[in-house]
Amino acid sequence: MPTTSLPRGVAIIGAGMSKFGAFPEKNSRDLFVEAYKDLLASVEKGFDPRQIESFYLGNFSSDLFEHQAHMAPLLADAVGLTPIPAARVENACASGATALRQGVMAIASGMADAVLVGGAEKMTNLPTADVTDTLAAAADMAFEISAGFTFPGFYAAIATAYMAKYGMKPEHLMNVALKNHENGALNPNAQFGVTIQKWMEGRVAAALKKGKPAPTWQTVMDFLHDDSANPMVAWPLRLFDCSPITDGASALLLVPADRAKDYTDTPIYITGSGQASDSALHDRADLTALPAAQRAAAQAYQMAGVTARDIRIAEVHDCFTIAEVVATEDLGFFAPGEGYRAAEDGVTARDGAKPINTSGGLKSKGHPVGASGVAQAVEVFKQMRGQAGARQVSGDVPLALTHNVGATGSTCLVHIYERKD
Amino acid sequence: MPTTSLPRGVAIIGAGMSKFGAFPEKNSRDLFVEAYKDLLASVEKGFDPRQIESFYLGNFSSDLFEHQAHMAPLLADAVGLTPIPAARVENACASGATALRQGVMAIASGMADAVLVGGAEKMTNLPTADVTDTLAAAADMAFEISAGFTFPGFYAAIATAYMAKYGMKPEHLMNVALKNHENGALNPNAQFGVTIQKWMEGRVAAALKKGKPAPTWQTVMDFLHDDSANPMVAWPLRLFDCSPITDGASALLLVPADRAKDYTDTPIYITGSGQASDSALHDRADLTALPAAQRAAAQAYQMAGVTARDIRIAEVHDCFTIAEVVATEDLGFFAPGEGYRAAEDGVTARDGAKPINTSGGLKSKGHPVGASGVAQAVEVFKQMRGQAGARQVSGDVPLALTHNVGATGSTCLVHIYERKD
Repeated sequence: MPTTSLPRGVAIIGAGMSKFGAFPEKNSRDLFVEAYKDLLASVEKGFDPRQIESFYLGNFSSDLFEHQAHMAPLLADAVGLTPIPAARVENACASGATALRQGVMAIASGMADAVLVGGAEKMTNLPTADVTDTLAAAADMAFEISAGFTFPGFYAAIATAYMAKYGMKPEHLMNVALKNHENGALNPNAQFGVTIQKWMEGRVAAALKKGKPAPTWQTVMDFLHDDSANPMVAWPLRLFDCSPITDGASALLLVPADRAKDYTDTPIYITGSGQASDSALHDRADLTALPAAQRAAAQAYQMAGVTARDIRIAEVHDCFTIAEVVATEDLGFFAPGEGYRAAEDGVTARDGAKPINTSGGLKSKGHPVGASGVAQAVEVFKQMRGQAGARQVSGDVPLALTHNVGATGSTCLVHIYERKD
Repeated sequence: MPTTSLPRGVAIIGAGMSKFGAFPEKNSRDLFVEAYKDLLASVEKGFDPRQIESFYLGNFSSDLFEHQAHMAPLLADAVGLTPIPAARVENACASGATALRQGVMAIASGMADAVLVGGAEKMTNLPTADVTDTLAAAADMAFEISAGFTFPGFYAAIATAYMAKYGMKPEHLMNVALKNHENGALNPNAQFGVTIQKWMEGRVAAALKKGKPAPTWQTVMDFLHDDSANPMVAWPLRLFDCSPITDGASALLLVPADRAKDYTDTPIYITGSGQASDSALHDRADLTALPAAQRAAAQAYQMAGVTARDIRIAEVHDCFTIAEVVATEDLGFFAPGEGYRAAEDGVTARDGAKPINTSGGLKSKGHPVGASGVAQAVEVFKQMRGQAGARQVSGDVPLALTHNVGATGSTCLVHIYERKD
């Protein structure tokens, strides 16, 4: 895709998602139908689905999670879109944004006039060890997993490199978790609709109810430093530094910019799209930044004709707390080594100068892998239209950004969104 | 994609493939590097790979076959293309053609000026029962596989429905197998480089060598009717009605038509692309045709401005012999119920009026699932340029077609190729 402006404007006119969480009785098909219905309901002036010309689905590994491949025509059929062309796109945890990019290209190029972009993943039916093993397939099996790495280990390596270079302490990362759970507690679709403070209070109440001695945590930071409450996963990352295992689906409806107002008074325009690949983590000189994210961001900013400073809010790929810190630097929001301080100082809070992950992020909203990249766009769509309910940021949101990472940055995508009234 | 002509011409300037077969010591990465090197060597005037702007990979389920997902950036890195955007596209056995279609769209729309399209699958490392189980994930697990179907059973159902409707006998299908092995025996990259006649002679020689009584087959049809030589898999389909389990990779290089002659004197133009989805087989009224193939063909013909009659050769998706018969009818080469007679009468032979699967097809060349759709284009590229060696058809090949099917037709794609001198 050229890094200059898109040949034709692209607008999102509808966005939807299922509730994220653990739903033993639902498969990807059920979840996607929920997201699709939510999407159709979001188009105020109505939209005849028979206008949809093609469907791109972001999905990481329904193969391993559900033993069901070839998911795109199945899901198209489930929502009544047969016989349109349907294709699954896979780029690990960046599958959703990769699907979105295909949709953006199809509209921008004039190849289609209405494209459905979806994401879905059903993860919680497998035992946790098998989920870890499945997620590991997103890394380089031959040179990384065979050496003993899993994803918490990868991001722990990134965190330790970052700590060594910039002097960050493990407790700094807890600011990211606290913030994202604060936001997620206000998102009715989030997997964890509760702050860490409430979580702690719940643990105390449960202990008292069972007649056990109440834990002695005085503050939420005490709670987060308690090995029994917040166990170490891969030093320096504890349980609350990690995003959860989640079932969920998400969906977006794209049309050409010049037709968007037929369906809604407040379309959200996609004005920038960047994507880059990289070698796997084991083959990189520096672990404290993701070059593919920097490159994707540069492309997207150039295409949209904006800078990092112009972005009002962003949803970034916080699969682990350290990933959010690095992302906010890769995107140019903060200088290298300053991202963790921005989280500490409240700059990235919902009422801060640069709100990050108002949805709760992967950390609290949940991370159904293939759905996450598309769900990021659902959040900015809602925030930009003033429809984010209790977690709505104050003031206008004329420009927003989403940042989606595959594995440890072998794939990165950045998209930029604009509201033009 | 509009069904009118493409907004910008698309040309293939290079095509390559690995040898297809069973290679215990090679993984998808090794196989794709072979295909990519073969591709680069095919561009007579040379091509600087640094011009490649994006990469689409067709792959069915490296997840289940190799426990390796996120294959697109890994393969891009293996051939030195980091940091270009890379994406895996999955549509079961039509993954290859789906990847090709994304490449065609990227060039035709002006979104890119050089796109690498690849296909890869590494299947033979799993036990056969696990391969069958993995392939089953391409069907509808909830409503088909749970009822006891596997792919030989699906295509056996199609064959019996076809026999009941049109009076075909099981032995008619053997004409397809005989022809495709005749062709594959002339293809140095084919998994089975041997005719069924030679195969039979080899079995006789082996028996005599071991001092056992020689089999009493008088003709190759005796051999094909012998339950020990050609066992029943799912009535009426026998072993030689089924395509094999294969390791392999394939690759194509696409550029805008108006730049193609910078790299080769004989580019091959892609002038038509069609794709359709369908409900799974259990949900269709008629089993004797694939509506998605008919629809994809109609789109591709309209876009290219040609008819079935104009097509000189075609590579069709012969995962089973009956699939080739049905394909030749769905594509409009023969009337419904006439496809099996065309095979019997030699019309589809290499020296017939409508040569089908000169490469040997999936049946004899092999069927590394995600690579097959791209390898079909490799074959027509070679035939149209007069570079198909011993299996070269006589006379010019100004127009050719490829037909790639996912599962039992939940996905179908058709592409049309033109040589313009």
